[in-house]
Amino acid sequence: MIAVLAGGVGAARLLRGLVQVVDPADVVVVANTGDDLVLHGLHISPDIDTVTYTLAEAGNRKTGWGLAGETWQAMDSLDRYGGPTWFRLGDRDLGTHLYRTGRLADGAGLTEVTAEVAESWGLGFRLLPATEDRLRTMVTLADGGEVGFQEYFVGLRHDVPVSGVRFDGADDALPGPGVLEAITTAEAVVVAPSNPLVSIAPILAVPGVRDAVAARRETVVAVSPIVGGSALKGPADRMLTEMGHESSVVGIARLYRDLVATLVIDRVDADLADGVEAEGVHCVVTDTVMRTTDVAAALAKTAIEAAA
Amino acid sequence: MIAVLAGGVGAARLLRGLVQVVDPADVVVVANTGDDLVLHGLHISPDIDTVTYTLAEAGNRKTGWGLAGETWQAMDSLDRYGGPTWFRLGDRDLGTHLYRTGRLADGAGLTEVTAEVAESWGLGFRLLPATEDRLRTMVTLADGGEVGFQEYFVGLRHDVPVSGVRFDGADDALPGPGVLEAITTAEAVVVAPSNPLVSIAPILAVPGVRDAVAARRETVVAVSPIVGGSALKGPADRMLTEMGHESSVVGIARLYRDLVATLVIDRVDADLADGVEAEGVHCVVTDTVMRTTDVAAALAKTAIEAAA
Repeated sequence: MIAVLAGGVGAARLLRGLVQVVDPADVVVVANTGDDLVLHGLHISPDIDTVTYTLAEAGNRKTGWGLAGETWQAMDSLDRYGGPTWFRLGDRDLGTHLYRTGRLADGAGLTEVTAEVAESWGLGFRLLPATEDRLRTMVTLADGGEVGFQEYFVGLRHDVPVSGVRFDGADDALPGPGVLEAITTAEAVVVAPSNPLVSIAPILAVPGVRDAVAARRETVVAVSPIVGGSALKGPADRMLTEMGHESSVVGIARLYRDLVATLVIDRVDADLADGVEAEGVHCVVTDTVMRTTDVAAALAKTAIEAAA
Repeated sequence: MIAVLAGGVGAARLLRGLVQVVDPADVVVVANTGDDLVLHGLHISPDIDTVTYTLAEAGNRKTGWGLAGETWQAMDSLDRYGGPTWFRLGDRDLGTHLYRTGRLADGAGLTEVTAEVAESWGLGFRLLPATEDRLRTMVTLADGGEVGFQEYFVGLRHDVPVSGVRFDGADDALPGPGVLEAITTAEAVVVAPSNPLVSIAPILAVPGVRDAVAARRETVVAVSPIVGGSALKGPADRMLTEMGHESSVVGIARLYRDLVATLVIDRVDADLADGVEAEGVHCVVTDTVMRTTDVAAALAKTAIEAAA
């Protein structure tokens, strides 16, 4: 069994390849819930939904989020009232949030609801929320003030410098059902090419998770989300710099060195392989820009072979 | 100023006429909230929305509820998950519930939110929830068991006999801001042709409201929701019979006699005018089936003249 620590888009792309080279029944995805929010009374789990929709081949390729064939009647209606529409919820996507919120209100756990949604989309792997408890990634802005992650990421279009992040609720959160078992018993653990500071770090912040990963470091592999010094998507590169890290594969190796034995980097960063190794992290060089599912499958294969 | 005690469809039809003959700025509508429900985490106020949408000429004439030009993507999506879709929420309609739920979560009162929604639709009158507190009309089924009003009305299509109703939360509810003042100071109070047992009774069950209406009985007029022994819409006729009342204008007079000095009945019931008067209620006979706005306007004019 392969366990994957996953954020949103980058993780979904890798998973699309992974399920080509590993039986999906042997894949367990531990998903970030630090991005979750309650908006208009609805419980929204952006990373879980991105993984679900993308792996169901139902993702909206035009927007990069949400569902294909989406309509926006509810948002237009909300807009009439002057309600907050900065977080765009499509009509089809709303059905997911209505279902999740209703089930949670009925007493179901987020893990159970996530499994139900994943199953209805025909996903063949297990998708586990990192925690069922309230966990909120809070972003400290460089010019003062703190906002929820989605307000930073979507509301402010991550177009402002940040000085730090914290994971509200993490101290009291319990790992979701199956999470520690998956991390402990997997043949290999893959850290997806997601933002290390706001997609992977919240998962690790759930008490017990970081230790469980570190305890089996030799068979943990990360795929660098930084390629040629930049993030392929999102603000990971700027955030790394703003928060005092290095936006390079070496910076990633430094962040992950206690947790992963191997870092997979892109060919454009081949000259930095020695720098990665100098951090005590074994370095594998391959194509990591997943323009096609074939590239993603080859990358996933390389990663799990490097971990084993 | 004219105050109207209002349920959903029947009240909306009368109001459409009333605003033709009275300056809307001089109309205050006290709306039933016993039908309200929280579904999928969203606060839904069916009667308030029916009044709002109908008076905005935005109501869906095909369904008799919801908004015109509606789409159903969210419900189709919810259906994929096997979620509860018996209470149909259109995509445009959902925008209203998202707005209301979000505002309530922000700490706004239902009165304030209702006013905001009404204003955005251009309604010229004040629309006041009977109470801002939790009030739930619960229906006891004849074969045992108790269900929420919408489960009876929509879920079971009111196709089962009932033995009683109660208004959960009424004892602890406070009249909404402005409600008692409107009822006390209005030139006339009009009880709309809504279901007396489940649309008007919940309003009256809010402590202080029944007494305020009774205290000014001489200038209170009701329009009978029963015409020729039947309800024009909904289960009022069957409910009256099942709960030991008479499904006739005389039965309505008996229910309302402590509250209203005048009952307006339809011409088809002219032969029962004496029976109404025998209950101590002045009887006015006119056209009450509001097929057109003109009929509704004439009916509204007759009602307020009878009250004055």
